[in-house]
Amino acid sequence: MNKDNLPVRSYKGTRDFYPMDMCYRNWYFSKVREVVEGFCYEEYHTPLLEPYEVYAAKSGDEVAGEQLYCFEDKGGRKIAIRPELTPSVARLVAARLEELTFPLRWYSIANVMRYEKPQKGRLREHWQVNVDIFGADEIEAELEIISIISRIMHTFQAKPDMFRIKINNRKFFTDVLTDVLKVKNTDVKTISRIVDKKAKMSQEKYYDWLKETGLTQDKIELLDKIFSSNLEEIIRMIHIDSKGANELSRLFQLLDETGLLRYCEFDFSIVRGFDYYTGTVFEVYDTSPENRRSLFGGGRYDNLVSMFKQRNISGIGFGLGDVTFQHFLEGNDLIPDKIYKSQQVLIARFPDVPVSEYFKLAEDLWSVHVKTSIYFSAHDKLGKQLKFAEKKGYSLVIILGVDELKENKITIKYLDSTTQVTVKRDECAGKIKEFPG
Amino acid sequence: MNKDNLPVRSYKGTRDFYPMDMCYRNWYFSKVREVVEGFCYEEYHTPLLEPYEVYAAKSGDEVAGEQLYCFEDKGGRKIAIRPELTPSVARLVAARLEELTFPLRWYSIANVMRYEKPQKGRLREHWQVNVDIFGADEIEAELEIISIISRIMHTFQAKPDMFRIKINNRKFFTDVLTDVLKVKNTDVKTISRIVDKKAKMSQEKYYDWLKETGLTQDKIELLDKIFSSNLEEIIRMIHIDSKGANELSRLFQLLDETGLLRYCEFDFSIVRGFDYYTGTVFEVYDTSPENRRSLFGGGRYDNLVSMFKQRNISGIGFGLGDVTFQHFLEGNDLIPDKIYKSQQVLIARFPDVPVSEYFKLAEDLWSVHVKTSIYFSAHDKLGKQLKFAEKKGYSLVIILGVDELKENKITIKYLDSTTQVTVKRDECAGKIKEFPG
Repeated sequence: MNKDNLPVRSYKGTRDFYPMDMCYRNWYFSKVREVVEGFCYEEYHTPLLEPYEVYAAKSGDEVAGEQLYCFEDKGGRKIAIRPELTPSVARLVAARLEELTFPLRWYSIANVMRYEKPQKGRLREHWQVNVDIFGADEIEAELEIISIISRIMHTFQAKPDMFRIKINNRKFFTDVLTDVLKVKNTDVKTISRIVDKKAKMSQEKYYDWLKETGLTQDKIELLDKIFSSNLEEIIRMIHIDSKGANELSRLFQLLDETGLLRYCEFDFSIVRGFDYYTGTVFEVYDTSPENRRSLFGGGRYDNLVSMFKQRNISGIGFGLGDVTFQHFLEGNDLIPDKIYKSQQVLIARFPDVPVSEYFKLAEDLWSVHVKTSIYFSAHDKLGKQLKFAEKKGYSLVIILGVDELKENKITIKYLDSTTQVTVKRDECAGKIKEFPG
Repeated sequence: MNKDNLPVRSYKGTRDFYPMDMCYRNWYFSKVREVVEGFCYEEYHTPLLEPYEVYAAKSGDEVAGEQLYCFEDKGGRKIAIRPELTPSVARLVAARLEELTFPLRWYSIANVMRYEKPQKGRLREHWQVNVDIFGADEIEAELEIISIISRIMHTFQAKPDMFRIKINNRKFFTDVLTDVLKVKNTDVKTISRIVDKKAKMSQEKYYDWLKETGLTQDKIELLDKIFSSNLEEIIRMIHIDSKGANELSRLFQLLDETGLLRYCEFDFSIVRGFDYYTGTVFEVYDTSPENRRSLFGGGRYDNLVSMFKQRNISGIGFGLGDVTFQHFLEGNDLIPDKIYKSQQVLIARFPDVPVSEYFKLAEDLWSVHVKTSIYFSAHDKLGKQLKFAEKKGYSLVIILGVDELKENKITIKYLDSTTQVTVKRDECAGKIKEFPG
């Protein structure tokens, strides 16, 4: 029979979260949630599956193509496991356009799946926090989003030198390519794809790919020059009135005024993979070279809602993945030990005391929110029960034997010391509440 | 272009959770979580996908067959979206048999998918709380599980007459069928399937199905008699020493001693659909005939871990689905209005005040956990901003215009009355914290 056993490993590219892993995950999400709700964002949630077409239209070839988990259901519908949340939230917004009061501040925490080659920082199933604003055209929406990111970093005690928020603008990118490099509009998408992957490939391959698009040596050199220039210098190269340039200038001015500039920088190579971005785009990077994938990624997308309803509602937001962010926190030693501990009480059992007595005791503790369990077997020796309590990390053991029962008392044993104390039964909960952590 | 728009409806049998729906869901899960963690259960989480074989072996024909969302991944692996959590948690236990200290008290909150015909109380995607004990053979494990269920009901203010915990035992069921009805061991599974569906079909169809299994009229009448008998009466019909009968007797004795019996009853028709149960089985029902599907379902399963590792670790636990439970709470008017409200502050904007001033003010509030947002447009009239605040459910609006800025003051407008108050800027957070709810 042994040879027929099923494998215990989780499906490739996915993780099992044991209780210790969940301590981390719950701590991490609750801190992010606290920041986002602090900005008055409301939580939503979407189904695991969406029709295939939702991703085919706007997610970009990579995510909607080879990375998508899609299949036919038993009713012949072509459906996909969500590879990202943005199209789903756009659908929710479109469905209630008339009832909703804009702007919306919405967030969600959910798992997404992409068929990837599992590698550092990249899995097939990961968890994302998605934060979005719908119906705000003002540049202040960008400012708020950057402000949320910096506050999330702050709440995890991240120092400014540990991360960089890198910002660009899709309209600006297009204007520079078409006006300065004289690239045809139809080629902008191809070049942006190459630029998006620039950091992940050899210089040689990068130049080869650019040449394949028809860019001449002169223009490739000019592009190199642009990459090494700052925002003001690039703006001076443009001859047209660029809306993207104005948006970037205004955003950086506001970032400066509000003190957020020290976390941010302009980076012309930030273009983002998804096709739906139309304005500001940004990514947040760990400054450690050990953790090269972006922590946060996002931007402004003006046309997603119109996939579902003929009305333009602009959106701007970001996704924050759990895998790279955990590497960031671990690499910077920002995960406190205390998140793995909580006070728990074990009630030991003695064979001659009725189980109902232990339940009464436990109920007193449950009702004042003391985490309590009753040992299952009345026939195990106390020594064995104490050993179990220690191994499991209980902080206290309550002893109620025949003698204690007669005297209406209980004894509390503190497991991190050798002390114990005997109190009246009705003082038990109060005494335990005194005990720290 | 209108005709090309994608549908806004969610995939069949799934739900979109808008912020109001999430208020309910977060309230509901946090209350269940509080009870379960009160009993020292630790949270785990498993991947969305498992190999197909994990369900094929033990879940029973219905769930592993026509209800399973399964497909081949791009690497040719046959995989399934989890239709339930128990096989996954058994896998996690098997993978770390040597490191774990038993008994384990574990829980998880996760979505599962089954290809069903959507109907009241039954959807294709629903959320489940799963609570399990591994490695406890004692009947006290059963007692603890029933105790958790009754405490969950209690925490939602459910009265004893609103629900019933119905209990049976698979071994007892088999003993009665083979010893009293002289049914062959190989036919027990077929008859248990029919009994499991008894309540959902016509009496006529039920009798027809029983006859098809080869049961004579005498025996069908005897089975009817058994269904109308109580536990003691049925035990008296058995001639063999039934382990299941002993377990049931002992459990009901403990339920009586601990005061839990008033929520419970023995019900010979409770058998549960999953093939893996081996002992105690139970379901919790709403007493309202409007909500006919079970709220909780569970039992003891002794062989699930051995699917993965050659060792027997007994398990007992339950699943609690969100759909029928929501009907239960709604039907009994147990959802308080206050779960939909939270105090939020809107900072109004004036064109001549720099945005940095509003950010400073907001930061003071964020740092003391007051939910705050800044109005996006500096050019909208105050009236429009106040209307927005009212529509969105903000409780307070802070006004910081040019005059207030000069005098280092702010005005707080209370939206549920016509009052407002002007205070020094550094007293703002304290003043707002005074405001209830």
